[in-house]
Amino acid sequence: MSGDFLALAQPGVQQLSPYVPGKPVDELARELDIDPATIVKLASNENPLGASPKALAAIREELAELTRYPDGNGFALKTLLAEQTGVQLNQVTLGNGSNDILELVARAYLAPGLNAVFSEHTFAVYPIVTQAIGATAHVVPAKDWGHDLPAMLGAIDENTRVVFLANPNNPTGTWFSAEALNEFLQDVPECVLVVLDEAYIEYAEGSELPDGVEFLSAYPNLLVSRTFSKAYGLAALRVGYGLSSAVVADVLNRVRQPFNVNSLALAAACAALQDADYLAESRRLNEAGMEQLQDGFRELGLQWIPSKGNFIAVDLGQVAAPVYQGLLREGVIVRPVANYGMPNHLRVTIGLPAENTRLLEALAKVLARG
Amino acid sequence: MSGDFLALAQPGVQQLSPYVPGKPVDELARELDIDPATIVKLASNENPLGASPKALAAIREELAELTRYPDGNGFALKTLLAEQTGVQLNQVTLGNGSNDILELVARAYLAPGLNAVFSEHTFAVYPIVTQAIGATAHVVPAKDWGHDLPAMLGAIDENTRVVFLANPNNPTGTWFSAEALNEFLQDVPECVLVVLDEAYIEYAEGSELPDGVEFLSAYPNLLVSRTFSKAYGLAALRVGYGLSSAVVADVLNRVRQPFNVNSLALAAACAALQDADYLAESRRLNEAGMEQLQDGFRELGLQWIPSKGNFIAVDLGQVAAPVYQGLLREGVIVRPVANYGMPNHLRVTIGLPAENTRLLEALAKVLARG
Repeated sequence: MSGDFLALAQPGVQQLSPYVPGKPVDELARELDIDPATIVKLASNENPLGASPKALAAIREELAELTRYPDGNGFALKTLLAEQTGVQLNQVTLGNGSNDILELVARAYLAPGLNAVFSEHTFAVYPIVTQAIGATAHVVPAKDWGHDLPAMLGAIDENTRVVFLANPNNPTGTWFSAEALNEFLQDVPECVLVVLDEAYIEYAEGSELPDGVEFLSAYPNLLVSRTFSKAYGLAALRVGYGLSSAVVADVLNRVRQPFNVNSLALAAACAALQDADYLAESRRLNEAGMEQLQDGFRELGLQWIPSKGNFIAVDLGQVAAPVYQGLLREGVIVRPVANYGMPNHLRVTIGLPAENTRLLEALAKVLARG
Repeated sequence: MSGDFLALAQPGVQQLSPYVPGKPVDELARELDIDPATIVKLASNENPLGASPKALAAIREELAELTRYPDGNGFALKTLLAEQTGVQLNQVTLGNGSNDILELVARAYLAPGLNAVFSEHTFAVYPIVTQAIGATAHVVPAKDWGHDLPAMLGAIDENTRVVFLANPNNPTGTWFSAEALNEFLQDVPECVLVVLDEAYIEYAEGSELPDGVEFLSAYPNLLVSRTFSKAYGLAALRVGYGLSSAVVADVLNRVRQPFNVNSLALAAACAALQDADYLAESRRLNEAGMEQLQDGFRELGLQWIPSKGNFIAVDLGQVAAPVYQGLLREGVIVRPVANYGMPNHLRVTIGLPAENTRLLEALAKVLARG
């Protein structure tokens, strides 16, 4: 056999198209030859508040141990998570971001010939981890931009091993109720692992969204995945977690790399979990920004998809790519979502009030140009 | 099918035994009910020097961007690595530690029915990543505790896709020459990817060990893997890299998680690469400590395996487990290596002079007790 290392790669890997992240500020600054500080990035659903002071203090303290490997068991963080969520320590899996949790699930439970079910217009990492394994994706058409749970049930067959649900969903911001989730879980075959991705759940507290954790005891085939990258403001550090039955957690912990979460992330996540003020302020800022953006879109005569996340998908009523480019030239980065089957929408992260104003003014300008 | 999520896991995953890390200081402190500060840990081949001041400064600066995702392309670090090693940017793959690089290789190029070749007494992550995929391990008996390269060539068959080599090897510290590597590479089939793990290579500079990078242009089936966890002193942060042909790097970059390396690791690694003084001091300390330990072992009448790493495997001439336990009771953590097929050895990381003294005194005490 020849040394063609593309052809030698596993078939699923050969077909992989990597994840496309939001455009980095530095990249745009280089392209436009302007000061990065003047650029507004509302492209990656990052927390605009800046980091939790408690998380920063925890990191500074942990710097004394920089030459030492992390605690591979993440004992302190797992203990805190178990306490706060009411699960046992052996039900927790820590990940290098929740992306890692999603990937561990795919590696443990999917294979060529098996399939994963997920919705149209949902997080790009579900198809990527499925494809990387060489498993098949059953993509179910969305309903009003959200998950069509009955149709997703219908898409499950004897080779389905995983269903990915996102609540609220990214990039649409749509959500489903506790009742809908319960009905879904009742009808899913018990050999199918349901991954409930709650990356944005902290923004939806007190709303009609279910808390997935409350369903864990009744459904051993449920895994709830969460992250510190959004409301907890630690995207740079890469830390997320899965809550599941002890059996599923045991399997995922076998597959994960022994030191998959770095020490500074472990320390910062512990501190962030205990910084209730930061979380409350993140939520408050998000609610205010969500109103500000909706008011602005209304004035511009634009529609949007109602969202429970820290972002909103605005419908431009026309192909969005030129508007996205126009916004870049104004120093504003948002996220085009044509690759999510949404060519007329742009996904805008809720920013600080001044950032939201910059976006709205730039959008008005670009749209006025026609 | 029932909801038995162990039985539902992929066969390779079901058989996985997780990596056993060095015993954490905090764990021993809890067990012995003593101050963690009094414990000496020489168990994980960590750099005893403490972190590079330049790396610490880079981290502090990067803290301003904690809520932002890392640069998924690692542009700055890859640029520096390419400059320092003379490869092109598209030949570099960044990993969440070099463990990540090893795993990416397995996921891209192994599958059930295929196999990987590696030596007896070598790094535990090679069998783990092979097993996780469900591929087969061809373990080749060692020669004088080191790699028997001709025998490894003989173990390659038509289903071999990967060979793992470690130079120097962990946990034995053994090494092979540039000439031996060249002969090996000349004879390996061109469809077999040779992973040359140089996690400890910075400690061996100027010695007879080859620099794997110099072989990349001649051998497109070579990948050199390195880490910032050892001589660069950044184990807590998780960052390593692979250098290979552009084709192999392209494949690995498709498989890796989009934000696999955190922002603080990227910044610190850039700074560490430019801190020549730190690297020189790490080497100096290691050489002195290696002499100190060898002198001490000689006085105790013990043999050891000559090592080019920052560790040394000492032969106790008896089953080592009780001695390991005895050392723990003295507040000294080293690494038992029975799971590496070396029941009579302990692997000792080179520490600071005072730490090495503590180890030698504790060892004398424990051995005297018989």
